[in-house]
Amino acid sequence: MAPHGEGSDASVEAMVAQVEKHPISSILIIIAMQTEALPVVNKFQLIENPHSSFPKGVPWIHYHGAYKDIIINLVWPGKDLTFGVDSVGTISASLVTYASIQALQPDLIINAGTAGGFKEKGAAIGDVFLVSHVAFHDRRIPIPVFDLYGVGLRQTYSTPNLLKALNLKTGKLSTGDSLDMSPHDEASIAANNATVKDMEGAAVAYVAELLKVPAIFVKAVTDIVDGEKPTAEEFLQNLAAVTATLEEVVTQVIDFISGKCLPEL
Amino acid sequence: MAPHGEGSDASVEAMVAQVEKHPISSILIIIAMQTEALPVVNKFQLIENPHSSFPKGVPWIHYHGAYKDIIINLVWPGKDLTFGVDSVGTISASLVTYASIQALQPDLIINAGTAGGFKEKGAAIGDVFLVSHVAFHDRRIPIPVFDLYGVGLRQTYSTPNLLKALNLKTGKLSTGDSLDMSPHDEASIAANNATVKDMEGAAVAYVAELLKVPAIFVKAVTDIVDGEKPTAEEFLQNLAAVTATLEEVVTQVIDFISGKCLPEL
Repeated sequence: MAPHGEGSDASVEAMVAQVEKHPISSILIIIAMQTEALPVVNKFQLIENPHSSFPKGVPWIHYHGAYKDIIINLVWPGKDLTFGVDSVGTISASLVTYASIQALQPDLIINAGTAGGFKEKGAAIGDVFLVSHVAFHDRRIPIPVFDLYGVGLRQTYSTPNLLKALNLKTGKLSTGDSLDMSPHDEASIAANNATVKDMEGAAVAYVAELLKVPAIFVKAVTDIVDGEKPTAEEFLQNLAAVTATLEEVVTQVIDFISGKCLPEL
Repeated sequence: MAPHGEGSDASVEAMVAQVEKHPISSILIIIAMQTEALPVVNKFQLIENPHSSFPKGVPWIHYHGAYKDIIINLVWPGKDLTFGVDSVGTISASLVTYASIQALQPDLIINAGTAGGFKEKGAAIGDVFLVSHVAFHDRRIPIPVFDLYGVGLRQTYSTPNLLKALNLKTGKLSTGDSLDMSPHDEASIAANNATVKDMEGAAVAYVAELLKVPAIFVKAVTDIVDGEKPTAEEFLQNLAAVTATLEEVVTQVIDFISGKCLPEL
């Protein structure tokens, strides 16, 4: 079933036009890690939906609640059934974005999470970025046009008023399935002109575009990729503090969205 | 909705037990590229289903037909809406596997396609492998347990009689979203002890396991990764001939499956 019942050639803009005259009534927050999700769940007193329309057996968790005039859905892909760790990365992010759009038909997607930042591009620990563009850095397909498909550069849904009101930093996000950065990844991230690096954003953007739902990306910096400390160590060290900051900014975003139509963002 | 209506802790084996007493009646073939898919579509005179239950707007193509006592579904993720090339790689493969299982509830998944082979491990151009294990080589997460989740080593559904009857080669498959191979990829592929390398297999396996459907992997070698020729050039040169071989083996697999129950494979 189509999320909005439109024809196959309808653009994101056309779909947005349908809802843009009405205040945003339903948002979908996609967050990859429990540590990132719980502060937001607690802040908005979201409750777990034990009767989610996800297939039985998947670890995906749907939290929901209401805040002011907005229905908030938050989906976390849960703990991997085999290994027990958060189901991070592009595959889980794609699947839950797809399944959640089908089930919940949100007006807007917010992909929130932590990210690595490049100090050379102006990122510091604790910075929160509202992402302007997304791309992949680990999908190298050296055949003409396939190369561009692999990179998958996409502009995010433009929210100039939100950016200005919250005084957030903005920059490009590069996504890959590794927490570390190989020399090949580094070259691709540089080619993507990215300020922040994560493991889900471009995948969420791909699925959101496929199903014609506008999406924005709020990424908080836990580690400096071009700094001295090893990424994994710095990431784990800063995770708790930075997720608190992330929750504050997500709250500000939702407060700003409340009562507004999409073109007002 | 659950594909089989079972509880969340049911294993693949338990699900298989449900259908294992009955001959296989419905298979789902997942193929990433049109060039790989069309010989199989033509061989079995499959027709495109214009009323597939996929969301409107997605490029995914569902072909179906009947052969002997089996309903054959073949799903190709189609041409990327932005770039016009085949939607290769793990994200599209995951999404179509998920959506197809939900829609079609197959007894068995066959992921067929081309692959790079390692001559050091015994692979030659035109060889067709029935894969024993899958893993990822481009999901490096150097945090304990997350590292294992990233690699995602999985045993495929075991089909010793099929392997013997068709006299196929067997080996491990390593999956990544790049057609080329970086030094980091090479080290991971070696750690995965892989004989063949593709861009979808481990993703299909992940989703099949998540939704508890047995899956097998038939991979035909288009290029020798540890050979002299550049991968992209060799891949394009051999693609047509090798896809003809792939179709022949897929036909043999379906002929073997026909009338059998899962444990007889």
